[in-house]
Amino acid sequence: MPDGLKGSQKAKLFSAMATNANRAYTVRLPAWGGPTEAPSVEASRGGGTGRRAGFKIRFPKGSGGSIPPSGTTPLVTNIMMNFCSYCGESVSRKTPHDDNRKRWVCDSCGRIHYQNPLPVVGCVPERDGKILLCKRAIEPRYGYWTVPAGFMELGESTVQGAARETREEACAEVEIGHLFAVVDVIDAGQIHLFYTAKLIGDFSAGHESLEVALFSEDEIPWDDIAFHSGRYALKKYFEDKGQNTGVHIHELRRSRS
Amino acid sequence: MPDGLKGSQKAKLFSAMATNANRAYTVRLPAWGGPTEAPSVEASRGGGTGRRAGFKIRFPKGSGGSIPPSGTTPLVTNIMMNFCSYCGESVSRKTPHDDNRKRWVCDSCGRIHYQNPLPVVGCVPERDGKILLCKRAIEPRYGYWTVPAGFMELGESTVQGAARETREEACAEVEIGHLFAVVDVIDAGQIHLFYTAKLIGDFSAGHESLEVALFSEDEIPWDDIAFHSGRYALKKYFEDKGQNTGVHIHELRRSRS
Repeated sequence: MPDGLKGSQKAKLFSAMATNANRAYTVRLPAWGGPTEAPSVEASRGGGTGRRAGFKIRFPKGSGGSIPPSGTTPLVTNIMMNFCSYCGESVSRKTPHDDNRKRWVCDSCGRIHYQNPLPVVGCVPERDGKILLCKRAIEPRYGYWTVPAGFMELGESTVQGAARETREEACAEVEIGHLFAVVDVIDAGQIHLFYTAKLIGDFSAGHESLEVALFSEDEIPWDDIAFHSGRYALKKYFEDKGQNTGVHIHELRRSRS
Repeated sequence: MPDGLKGSQKAKLFSAMATNANRAYTVRLPAWGGPTEAPSVEASRGGGTGRRAGFKIRFPKGSGGSIPPSGTTPLVTNIMMNFCSYCGESVSRKTPHDDNRKRWVCDSCGRIHYQNPLPVVGCVPERDGKILLCKRAIEPRYGYWTVPAGFMELGESTVQGAARETREEACAEVEIGHLFAVVDVIDAGQIHLFYTAKLIGDFSAGHESLEVALFSEDEIPWDDIAFHSGRYALKKYFEDKGQNTGVHIHELRRSRS
């Protein structure tokens, strides 16, 4: 419960939370990475503060402790909402007219608050056969290695996003090549798009990285790669040997990843 | 202003709207389609009711009348928020600690409400060299033709989404092939992913379509295709002649589309 709320506001919030707690939805679950991570589409009720963490994952506080057994529940979910972001009144889960899915709908103004998967963009920066990886300075997966990647921002293309993430995480410029891997990270509500890239000039650790370094294929720390999707992209990158022969499509679900 | 609000709620809403109206952001703008459409990431303040319209575009009522001259303003923007969807208090535009962009941040509980581009998935269903198109029964672009496509839903893969859209709009089953086009529709805050597909069995108009029909390349109603992204996908599909030689990446901005 946030501080600074007046009594009536607290009552309103408690009421909405109590009502929603009985509804049939699940809250964001871990999905796509190593054994300890618990990313989600967005920080929400009962979760963290929406902190952006390197791979730009938003993950709920304590979610690791409330993971249902694999295969027992629907793993993907809508993010919790208590109030309409337009008028501030309560929202309910209901199926709008002409729709076939439950959405968050405002009880007062009727606005529908859609929730959809989010795109994550990244690249495999290469120079002389070596790949630039970043050692994460943030949770989740602190201390593990990753290719530069993160949530795409409004106003940019997928190519621009992949280059921006490389700039932010590895202080490096890249010339983006072709899209070679798309990974559906279903339980996190994300799709990850990976481009080939040529590393240009210097590099150094951005503020989300402990260090950045170049690795040849046999030097890649496979057991210490932060995320399944990034590991998949690296594997496919080496399999392709730089040839553009289409995109590898891969689906990650908790029960099978 | 929604009906049914109490006086204090109205005052709260007016106050939030007045404050936010002076802030430096723009609201969703038309972007990627024909001359009349005005899609956006999500219905929001001053806009429509979030109605899902065929291509699953959400577009603001009257936005066509408030389009700034091309090139004079940043075209992409964050969706208007007045209130925190968690605690119901007001939100402000500010740059969170450890971030480099302005976000909607709750003035009370501090939650950050990120906004990112959304994925749209579609396919080009083919049988014996002919392509299945749908004539739109809904706005925007009522009466224009489109390949089956729409917003990806939580819980599904890009492939599943493309097949689902075909089922909904054309009552048809498809066997999805390979990803061949990705279009960044920047001003709408969307990325569109198009797959090849083989049409299986019968088809008929879904409730969002006036009719569905098969077209050979020289029968395609090019001047009546609903959206730039779909037209691009069709062009590239025929150029490729079904070969999987990588993905065509295309960027649509209002000033250049």
